[in-house]
Amino acid sequence: MEKAYRELCERTGEIVDLGSATAVLGWDQQVYMPPGGAEARGRQMATLGKLAHEMIINPRNGVLLNQLVKFEKSRGYDSKEATIIRLSRRGYEKAVKVPPEHTSKMSKAQSECFEAWLRARPANDFTLVRAKLEKSFALYREYSDFFPGHQHPLDPLIDNNDYGMRASDIRKIFSELRRKLVPMVEAITGQEPADDSFLKKKYDGPKQLEFGKSVVQDFGYDFERGRQDMAAHPFTTSFTVGDVRITTRIHENYLGSALFGTLHEAGHAMYEQGCDPDFDGTLIRGGTSIGVHESQSRLWENIVGRSMPFWKHYYPALREQFPKQLGKVPLDRFYRGINKVQKSLIRVEADEVTYNLHVMMRFDFECDLLAEKMSVSELPDAWNDRMEADLGFRPPTDANGVMQDIHWYSGAVGYFQGYSLGNIMSAQFYNAALKAHPEIATEIGRGKFGTLHGWLRDNIYRHGSKYTANELLERTTGGGLDIGPYMKYLKTKYGELYDL
Amino acid sequence: MEKAYRELCERTGEIVDLGSATAVLGWDQQVYMPPGGAEARGRQMATLGKLAHEMIINPRNGVLLNQLVKFEKSRGYDSKEATIIRLSRRGYEKAVKVPPEHTSKMSKAQSECFEAWLRARPANDFTLVRAKLEKSFALYREYSDFFPGHQHPLDPLIDNNDYGMRASDIRKIFSELRRKLVPMVEAITGQEPADDSFLKKKYDGPKQLEFGKSVVQDFGYDFERGRQDMAAHPFTTSFTVGDVRITTRIHENYLGSALFGTLHEAGHAMYEQGCDPDFDGTLIRGGTSIGVHESQSRLWENIVGRSMPFWKHYYPALREQFPKQLGKVPLDRFYRGINKVQKSLIRVEADEVTYNLHVMMRFDFECDLLAEKMSVSELPDAWNDRMEADLGFRPPTDANGVMQDIHWYSGAVGYFQGYSLGNIMSAQFYNAALKAHPEIATEIGRGKFGTLHGWLRDNIYRHGSKYTANELLERTTGGGLDIGPYMKYLKTKYGELYDL
Repeated sequence: MEKAYRELCERTGEIVDLGSATAVLGWDQQVYMPPGGAEARGRQMATLGKLAHEMIINPRNGVLLNQLVKFEKSRGYDSKEATIIRLSRRGYEKAVKVPPEHTSKMSKAQSECFEAWLRARPANDFTLVRAKLEKSFALYREYSDFFPGHQHPLDPLIDNNDYGMRASDIRKIFSELRRKLVPMVEAITGQEPADDSFLKKKYDGPKQLEFGKSVVQDFGYDFERGRQDMAAHPFTTSFTVGDVRITTRIHENYLGSALFGTLHEAGHAMYEQGCDPDFDGTLIRGGTSIGVHESQSRLWENIVGRSMPFWKHYYPALREQFPKQLGKVPLDRFYRGINKVQKSLIRVEADEVTYNLHVMMRFDFECDLLAEKMSVSELPDAWNDRMEADLGFRPPTDANGVMQDIHWYSGAVGYFQGYSLGNIMSAQFYNAALKAHPEIATEIGRGKFGTLHGWLRDNIYRHGSKYTANELLERTTGGGLDIGPYMKYLKTKYGELYDL
Repeated sequence: MEKAYRELCERTGEIVDLGSATAVLGWDQQVYMPPGGAEARGRQMATLGKLAHEMIINPRNGVLLNQLVKFEKSRGYDSKEATIIRLSRRGYEKAVKVPPEHTSKMSKAQSECFEAWLRARPANDFTLVRAKLEKSFALYREYSDFFPGHQHPLDPLIDNNDYGMRASDIRKIFSELRRKLVPMVEAITGQEPADDSFLKKKYDGPKQLEFGKSVVQDFGYDFERGRQDMAAHPFTTSFTVGDVRITTRIHENYLGSALFGTLHEAGHAMYEQGCDPDFDGTLIRGGTSIGVHESQSRLWENIVGRSMPFWKHYYPALREQFPKQLGKVPLDRFYRGINKVQKSLIRVEADEVTYNLHVMMRFDFECDLLAEKMSVSELPDAWNDRMEADLGFRPPTDANGVMQDIHWYSGAVGYFQGYSLGNIMSAQFYNAALKAHPEIATEIGRGKFGTLHGWLRDNIYRHGSKYTANELLERTTGGGLDIGPYMKYLKTKYGELYDL
């Protein structure tokens, strides 16, 4: 084994450990930290981030990467060695293009913008955050300028979350998706709305949790290598292959939140738990992109967890837990209720069919803001106009409009596209699994998920971030990103529920 | 403000943040981490420790400290600026004397020894850990050699935990204490033992917790800046003045464990919570020594929490919680039970009177091992002989003998003395508080602790580690370490309970 390779592993391993430590601090911050800990926690996480950044851009890494060009080739693209070198090089070359002063300016601007959003949103006053958001977007544009040669200024930002994707590719696939979705939404929402009133009765919290836990255990989420806690904004986080944690929140007056939230987070978590343990502590551990990550959460939440065969199996158990609330609700009414399609204001509460319209609009705005085709001050009106055009009504407040998502205000730009890419890929991956193992469909109806989980582990999970999203698609489907399977899935499912 | 000072603050602030992050990882490890997380967590904490060490010994710190000699003098010993410089210098000068290779050898040897102990103790086989412990002690001796001029090879290790104390000082005070304690123990244990059978009935866990929580809230432990969780080996940990957490364990068949453990940990925690917030994120935050820390935990656990006035106030409430178990136990019997003195095997379960005998024996062995007057292989027999001489019986197993404490096996050598120094100082500090505010004694009998807490905050807590233990004693009592008040406390209390 090359000495330079060993040194690179040691150096990047320390960076990975620092990242995992930051993740533990972040988990604690959202789950158990008392109020008095907030201020210092922000500072501590910033310090770890600063140290990690300094370690990434250390010139020694560049020297080692130069020495390892031949070694990398000799090992072959798929090898652990070549992958570690490739991912190190990708991270290093990108990080050193950005002057450290810009990195600190950006992180300062982001945390100021986030603080302002925390005040502006409850006050329903966009002007309280507008200047900070303008500054943030100006810094994102500057960031893009450090990568000359990009097609679109959003590309270097997208690339941080969905490596290898460009705004033009995404725009192309989104406009195709949009063309097919809009008439579908119109057709469905013109019909009698589904009844989901029974979901909004009082459901005991601990019982909700217990049910969700038992389902994700059936899915294959391993509680010996994870745990579930409560959080105001549910998330999944991963410190090692052996410790991947999910969180959820309970609404005592809405069954859907904890239940489907738990299935969703377990999808993310199984991806992280399924990584080859040999990659632990290296750059390869962890999902390869936001899009692929989201494909896993949506696959388990929606394709599996909102399907009829799934509920044929699980509904009797759920009903037994909640006889008062569900005793008189037959399975087909329950199934219609959990798959209710409606025009709504809030992205995170949107159904499978309308969800992507929320995402596309955010993506289009990001493109326009980065390309200076739109200014931040035009954003609230543009938001409301687009909501009206796409989803039929204007948000009554900016709090429920342009300020509803944390992303732009906390530094996640070039991120939203991942949610819809995930939806599209979820159907592609599921189809590939089904093609290899047609018995998956009937197994789901028996509450058995071993074959599906096994296929996902072998074809996606275990690779960590060795392959890009496109490489995973190529390996599993023989082609690239394709909305076909996703549209077919929606048409079949909602064609049975509605007159399409 | 000097530029060099600002840079020193920034550099040491990052080291402090790394330390706090490591503490969060340690808390999680013992409180919520699933089994699968263990291996990576050890590695992550080692990485943070290594980075912090590299930052401490960075030669730039030496340059800055040289530049700051005049500035430090100009600010005066008590100033925040001079204190930060003084504590930086102390840490830097000590750390750079130890070659980095020795530091890594030591941390490797310690974790190997700890792993071996984890196996050896349940197997009751000291030979499984003997060689590792020998190696550890050899490395401790080497460590001492890096500080030529010490009086005793244990001194540089003691100094890491109880700054400014030397083995000779401690030995002198311990032999004085021993001379007075041994006849006391003999006199008490020759009499009819107290009845504490009622403590060993079944006590509902959540109710135990609730009661302990309400008491430490009365003490002044702030749950807005802390929390309580369960841990197999209870501890207190501090991430910032605003986030100081306690842990406890519940024995459903023994009331004493969670209750007095909670009072003890709250004593540690209030010390950390009471630090001047202006010191947060600097080297000054946090208790000044193991001894002073232990003085605070023992003061609240024993001097307050095992006193008659305290229980005159709290016993009715405890009895109300547990009428079946305590309904027929009058206050004086309860008081005798929680203060039962007996010769026992296990240090952490020992009463106030015998506790110090356990500590002194460990301290003497450390001295002899470091000075090569005793070898590790002689340790088990020496342990059993001394137990027999001091406490009347030989441990039936090494698991309950030489292997009972984690300290030596995990790298805490030169640490035990702090427990007895804490006992001695607890009485000195309490006397000083009482002298300033005689009403404290009656307030305790009314469940009011504001005056005592306030005096401790003003005279001890708020200073963090600005003053050494001896300086705190000097400031509050006008003298140094003195067993007088502690012996007087024991004689008065146990003279009333037993015929002395």
